[in-house]
Amino acid sequence: MPSRIRTAGFQGELGAFSHMAIRQMLGPGVKATPFPVFEQVFKALAAGKIDAAMIPVENTLHGSVHENYDHLLKYGLPIVGETTVRIVHNLIVTPGTKFTAIKKVFSHPVALNQCLNFFAAHPEFEKTTFYDTAGSIKMLLESRPAASAGIASALAAELYGCRILKRGIEDDHRNFTRFVLLRQKVEQPKSHEGAKVSLVFTTRNVPGSLFRALSAFALRDISLLKIESRPLRGKPWEYLFYLDFLGHVDEPRVRKALGHLQELADVYKVLGCYPRGAAQ
Amino acid sequence: MPSRIRTAGFQGELGAFSHMAIRQMLGPGVKATPFPVFEQVFKALAAGKIDAAMIPVENTLHGSVHENYDHLLKYGLPIVGETTVRIVHNLIVTPGTKFTAIKKVFSHPVALNQCLNFFAAHPEFEKTTFYDTAGSIKMLLESRPAASAGIASALAAELYGCRILKRGIEDDHRNFTRFVLLRQKVEQPKSHEGAKVSLVFTTRNVPGSLFRALSAFALRDISLLKIESRPLRGKPWEYLFYLDFLGHVDEPRVRKALGHLQELADVYKVLGCYPRGAAQ
Repeated sequence: MPSRIRTAGFQGELGAFSHMAIRQMLGPGVKATPFPVFEQVFKALAAGKIDAAMIPVENTLHGSVHENYDHLLKYGLPIVGETTVRIVHNLIVTPGTKFTAIKKVFSHPVALNQCLNFFAAHPEFEKTTFYDTAGSIKMLLESRPAASAGIASALAAELYGCRILKRGIEDDHRNFTRFVLLRQKVEQPKSHEGAKVSLVFTTRNVPGSLFRALSAFALRDISLLKIESRPLRGKPWEYLFYLDFLGHVDEPRVRKALGHLQELADVYKVLGCYPRGAAQ
Repeated sequence: MPSRIRTAGFQGELGAFSHMAIRQMLGPGVKATPFPVFEQVFKALAAGKIDAAMIPVENTLHGSVHENYDHLLKYGLPIVGETTVRIVHNLIVTPGTKFTAIKKVFSHPVALNQCLNFFAAHPEFEKTTFYDTAGSIKMLLESRPAASAGIASALAAELYGCRILKRGIEDDHRNFTRFVLLRQKVEQPKSHEGAKVSLVFTTRNVPGSLFRALSAFALRDISLLKIESRPLRGKPWEYLFYLDFLGHVDEPRVRKALGHLQELADVYKVLGCYPRGAAQ
């Protein structure tokens, strides 16, 4: 039986989208512990200071969070689950601030750039970059700058006692971030149904080597969900490949595919086998 | 005959590594025109304001410059060549500043983070982030902050009349950036020898589709050099794939492979056929 999760770490300020992912997957009873940078979350979990870590790996507009793929390999902390959060941006103010009084809007540059239609419709608002979305709401409350708003999650508005003046101001509503939940010890789903495997490998640098590696899966009708390449440190122009596929490591066809891949791969590591998150 | 290149655009300040790539590939006679952001370089070339653009696409430590892959597809400006620059970081001061007088060292955060051994050996130096490597040297010259140095290319030291106090202070010497040269019109190498093709495609979202797409190349012994996935806008969890391989678009086996790929791909576009840059 896996031990209970009491604390889960994430990067960012309280109210960040990673914090929403913790709430969504683990419920409000789990204590969410913020860290300033991603690697600190991995280190804290490796040292047993937190019970789990919620790490973003991919966004449907921006692609993979490559830094975290590097940390997944380096720290070897197993993926035990995944969840997807829709990124909804809200215009948030301290209580009492009126929409017509707003002059400056603070947020992370990526969030500001995801609300360009809103800013085009409100040329009176000045976009002002801040290091974090939820952090901009915390700052509104603490520093009370005049005529200011922030853009962040609904959870940030709730946690800092602020008000949402306009919901869903992002340009593209098909903006989702996929998070993985990491623990210290491997936990595998009991059911083979809906299980998913993430792994990383390198091929020998010979023609057709990636094709041959993928044949380990294609020949067994295993569906790849994602493939991602990252540079291999110390070997310029060689790559690590990260794969996600549907299956359970205990299924015979998956065991055979992994055995076949190991024959072809120089480096090979299963990052986790976990229940597939709900489709978005 | 392709028209002569008189001006080439790049992102960054004069003396940036992209500027070095222009010098290395096109010689000192070509005027290098700096732009603050990548998309402006693409726009200037599309509008015919510059004759060529030098764009970084990949670094051996950090991976692909994903933003530029998105621009390559959006603007459709053909790749006509490539070159690779070794990233050498140098400690640079204005004339007269002594090593022992230095307290602050300015540079782009990525460059500062690539010189951690140097800073560990010199705990008296304070790392100070700046928006650009070459820009930090320009600033030293213009603002003359006391007891300050910058980290940038040898070209930046030369252009701004500054002095290199220590060469090659980067931690990892296997740090290379690959640049592509873009023009307005397609230019193909006359020789099939050493030619390279870059293309982008999407597959239908069915099991084994990437494997089938790669089979178009593997079955014809065509060597893939790189594969990169990027999210497909508006279709969450579907991907564009960028491929580089050795071959010339006029070779029969390459024509057949491309025809085969077109049967399988929804979106398909050759980004360029160009002579492979010297190996590093």
